Amino acid sequence: MRYFEDFRVGEATELEPVTVTEEEIVEFARRYDPQPFHVDAEAAKDGPFGGLVASGWHTTALFMSTFVRTILLDSSSMGSPGVSEIRWTAPVRPGDTLRGRVTVTDVQPSSKRADRGTVFTACTVVNQDGVPVLSMTARGYFGRRPAR
Amino acid sequence: MRYFEDFRVGEATELEPVTVTEEEIVEFARRYDPQPFHVDAEAAKDGPFGGLVASGWHTTALFMSTFVRTILLDSSSMGSPGVSEIRWTAPVRPGDTLRGRVTVTDVQPSSKRADRGTVFTACTVVNQDGVPVLSMTARGYFGRRPAR
Repeated sequence: MRYFEDFRVGEATELEPVTVTEEEIVEFARRYDPQPFHVDAEAAKDGPFGGLVASGWHTTALFMSTFVRTILLDSSSMGSPGVSEIRWTAPVRPGDTLRGRVTVTDVQPSSKRADRGTVFTACTVVNQDGVPVLSMTARGYFGRRPAR
Repeated sequence: MRYFEDFRVGEATELEPVTVTEEEIVEFARRYDPQPFHVDAEAAKDGPFGGLVASGWHTTALFMSTFVRTILLDSSSMGSPGVSEIRWTAPVRPGDTLRGRVTVTDVQPSSKRADRGTVFTACTVVNQDGVPVLSMTARGYFGRRPAR
């Protein structure tokens, strides 16, 4: 179980890879981002990406799923106040395999609440060709290690 | 059909409301953000939010679904390079009704590609009590109005 005190600035963690299918791209987008280039493979051929691509929100959610499973579930995570500078830097297409990486950039004990601190991270995702498809900076609250 | 030229700085659009159920909160989170306070109502009672809350990514996706249906589907949207300063400012709980608002803050023709321009927006979401739950700034590419 990782507490706030266990995160070290400069520490980098490689997340498990995740492969995205056309079915999942369309399913996510029908609900949350039903633009033609996310939900209709035929229409997408003539669209700005020359084919079907995942919603950027789907790519971000896929990153999150691996971040949670690799790091957060075995931690004292208490949620997040937000993220900044999300950049979707290349299209994510059906069959792509994404690999995330999370680097701790800063840690700050809370000045208001003694039970927690904030961990700052730089997050990146590359596809199977090593092309960056997503980057962002994130913050998360983590509970502090209980006193003995 | 709205083209780049049709977006005016200062223009604000209210999006349709969307109500989120416990079932959907858990379904989204099981897949993309399976932290206990997003997937397990019982465990969440003792968690940092005192009950089950939606993943911030789910809240953001719900906003996007209304942004797309109200604005983007009837436009020349060509995707987005990214967003900044996402802030999840209050918990979203089962049964909450969310209302988004999108304000155009800037418009810039592309200097590299004559077929498009960038529309900058400030996006906010409030719940049924008027409490802000999400804010972010976003950018989107839009095709320019074709010459006659």
